Amino acid sequence: MNVLIYNEFVHEKDPDQKAAKVYPNGIHTAIADFLNREPDINASTVTLDNVSEGITKEVLAQTDVLLWWGHMRHDDVPDEVAALVQEAVLNGMGAVFLHSAHKSKPFMRLMGTDCSLIWRESDDMERIWVSAPYHPVAAGLDRFFELPAEETYGEPFGIPTPDETVFIGWFTGGEVFRAGCAWQRGWGKVFYFQPGHESYPTYFDPNVQKVIRNTVRWAKPACRREDCMDCPCLPKAHKGNL
Amino acid sequence: MNVLIYNEFVHEKDPDQKAAKVYPNGIHTAIADFLNREPDINASTVTLDNVSEGITKEVLAQTDVLLWWGHMRHDDVPDEVAALVQEAVLNGMGAVFLHSAHKSKPFMRLMGTDCSLIWRESDDMERIWVSAPYHPVAAGLDRFFELPAEETYGEPFGIPTPDETVFIGWFTGGEVFRAGCAWQRGWGKVFYFQPGHESYPTYFDPNVQKVIRNTVRWAKPACRREDCMDCPCLPKAHKGNL
Amino acid sequence: MNVLIYNEFVHEKDPDQKAAKVYPNGIHTAIADFLNREPDINASTVTLDNVSEGITKEVLAQTDVLLWWGHMRHDDVPDEVAALVQEAVLNGMGAVFLHSAHKSKPFMRLMGTDCSLIWRESDDMERIWVSAPYHPVAAGLDRFFELPAEETYGEPFGIPTPDETVFIGWFTGGEVFRAGCAWQRGWGKVFYFQPGHESYPTYFDPNVQKVIRNTVRWAKPACRREDCMDCPCLPKAHKGNL
Amino acid sequence: MNVLIYNEFVHEKDPDQKAAKVYPNGIHTAIADFLNREPDINASTVTLDNVSEGITKEVLAQTDVLLWWGHMRHDDVPDEVAALVQEAVLNGMGAVFLHSAHKSKPFMRLMGTDCSLIWRESDDMERIWVSAPYHPVAAGLDRFFELPAEETYGEPFGIPTPDETVFIGWFTGGEVFRAGCAWQRGWGKVFYFQPGHESYPTYFDPNVQKVIRNTVRWAKPACRREDCMDCPCLPKAHKGNL
Repeated sequence: MNVLIYNEFVHEKDPDQKAAKVYPNGIHTAIADFLNREPDINASTVTLDNVSEGITKEVLAQTDVLLWWGHMRHDDVPDEVAALVQEAVLNGMGAVFLHSAHKSKPFMRLMGTDCSLIWRESDDMERIWVSAPYHPVAAGLDRFFELPAEETYGEPFGIPTPDETVFIGWFTGGEVFRAGCAWQRGWGKVFYFQPGHESYPTYFDPNVQKVIRNTVRWAKPACRREDCMDCPCLPKAHKGNL
Repeated sequence: MNVLIYNEFVHEKDPDQKAAKVYPNGIHTAIADFLNREPDINASTVTLDNVSEGITKEVLAQTDVLLWWGHMRHDDVPDEVAALVQEAVLNGMGAVFLHSAHKSKPFMRLMGTDCSLIWRESDDMERIWVSAPYHPVAAGLDRFFELPAEETYGEPFGIPTPDETVFIGWFTGGEVFRAGCAWQRGWGKVFYFQPGHESYPTYFDPNVQKVIRNTVRWAKPACRREDCMDCPCLPKAHKGNL
Repeated sequence: MNVLIYNEFVHEKDPDQKAAKVYPNGIHTAIADFLNREPDINASTVTLDNVSEGITKEVLAQTDVLLWWGHMRHDDVPDEVAALVQEAVLNGMGAVFLHSAHKSKPFMRLMGTDCSLIWRESDDMERIWVSAPYHPVAAGLDRFFELPAEETYGEPFGIPTPDETVFIGWFTGGEVFRAGCAWQRGWGKVFYFQPGHESYPTYFDPNVQKVIRNTVRWAKPACRREDCMDCPCLPKAHKGNL
Repeated sequence: MNVLIYNEFVHEKDPDQKAAKVYPNGIHTAIADFLNREPDINASTVTLDNVSEGITKEVLAQTDVLLWWGHMRHDDVPDEVAALVQEAVLNGMGAVFLHSAHKSKPFMRLMGTDCSLIWRESDDMERIWVSAPYHPVAAGLDRFFELPAEETYGEPFGIPTPDETVFIGWFTGGEVFRAGCAWQRGWGKVFYFQPGHESYPTYFDPNVQKVIRNTVRWAKPACRREDCMDCPCLPKAHKGNL
């Protein structure tokens, strides 16, 4: 399966930010590295610098699942790219939005809501509970797993009620957050997964990697919609004539 | 309560179209007329001609529920207006999308999907079944009601799974359609109601009028969100300090 | 509106248990007391001792909303009573299940699942976050409220995905829990509200009382189903003949 | 995968009923026959006559998906058997309820509602529309398929809102019905599929067979819950100690 990882890749290039030390080659590279160790996954990457060339209708047609990480530069992603991503999801491509991508253009377009939350950077420990242990995304996890430090995200999370809430996060500072949420949108599966602040080595965590591997396989389309007409006018149907 | 009815008002001004005879003063006027007979409802109207002046942040702040009818000229509604409507819904305003408004900008923004359907103009009779008889929108209806002629709409309807499917339509031509669908989006209630083709006197039908009255009252916000900050950064919380 | 409060009333009569000091007249009396201060609410009570006489078809037909507290003696509630409660909910009565009532017969019948959870008695403080601030049950609350000590409940909670998750609880011991969950079942509204261990003065807490007042009003039926036939055989329908 | 097909097998043994001619060996045999043609499926059957010996905890533990057909003799299925089926589903077994099994004990226990509907035997043609074309259960189907004659079922269907409504049926007599509905219950997947009246050769229809093959594969558990404790009391958790 083909996985495409978008990362704006801004924090990590700023030597004054922790991210430069934690992810010297960028978050996208860290994720691609552990995904490419899987025999069934072929992961490639794209960053803001070449987003318009890297995320095209043709590329998305070959992409089973798109992962998206963005934070500072959501607005610099062209509307056209966000529209292509939305369209590809509706046609069946899986999409996984990571951490601060809750405010990315394609996620907000797919949700239709403000996707607001409360937050704080204070090195809280996060304990992520599995609230839907039967869900494929949670396969192989214990009751919970912990991240020694994460950015705190808290409710209310301004999203449509998820089809399934797979994870709920607990923070030492006193917050809770629906940390893993699944939606069907058109033919495509959408997942939001909260951990992944750029200052912490979250994407090197074995449990986080397990979740991302699970999610990517869950979001892979069984089939895609092709050459579909929008709002077709159909004659009175009789058996066999469609 | 204040209800604002948007109608693009294009078909009805074209003397070559049936709509000019059925709704000589426009669909918006027909709807406003029966709503204004209710002591608790104050209905006003706006059309495409003055949409930018008529649908402003200030107007929407005073609007409890917005009804929307559009068909030919969805694209001529400015993106800014669609964004204002979306924002108002997320802050609590109710919104009711009628018939071909399934492809209107504000509805598509709130859904995040393509809102596609199949359709045909062939004077089919429609029988609208109540699938959620307990829902306030269905109050006072029998098991079903009929419209002697309606435009045929059919599944699949490209929407996120509704929170509740209140009506399912049956057409003599052989189609079915989720004719009444409810969603919560942010603080606001959203309803889609399928009947209402411009060539038929649907909005004069007593049952359709009953549904619209019910829907408007159901969608009225109990409270609205005001001056809320998007994604506020909050300190570690202690009781009483928020 | 008529509210009926069921409490098994076992813990509070045992002088060796804290509950006897916290609720000397029983949890039901504590709840009835603050509800009966409301001009629109007429609250009465029933306990396990007279559950078969106190919860009859006739009584439930006059009850708008039933509150249910049980823990030690779920099994002693007759199946017939649980069946009557379930039937009344399906016909429109609201039902609010409190704390350990997650394992009560009527709640389990309405859910169809095992309603399992994890738990611990260790005097954890609980902070209850509002995850659906627009919901009538959360009206008048701040972002969260705290209970100095509660029994710890944790995920996974073995319930069908709620229609809406209004509250999520955070416990000092490290657990999270969907503390307020809403479902439609038949014509009736069902709510589960987690706080309320018998050893703590939870039902004297102003925020808990506010939630219960809100919930009772939200769950009040707008209409009830009466004399309905189960699975009626209907002739081919023609307009007006139903 | 192991599929177990329960059929009460009453109609087909009555020489005065059409079913005896349509399904001389019983509906269960007809279904087992086409499923056993699949290399990945091992289908066996059980009938009311030996339901207590045929549906045990041990048998269900080896069953991936259970299909259930019943009509006249729902009440003769022991409560113990229905409880075992419910428990097995909550632990991960898939369950598919066919046609009149909407009133079977295990389905009603899993739903928690009355599962009422309207019905009529009048040889209506049914056209079954795919409302969720992306769903695995609909794979390989056209927009709709038709059954020349089926028992008419109609809304309202007294079920909890399905997680997904995959099919909606249209009947020549004027009814509509949510003909394919999916729910998650505990760790198990549940599907209701409406066609299958005993008087018609529905289970010989190629599209119906395709749906049942799809459904069985969709409902197959990826994993099962084993030896789980109900409501475990857990100590304060620290990383790694669960």
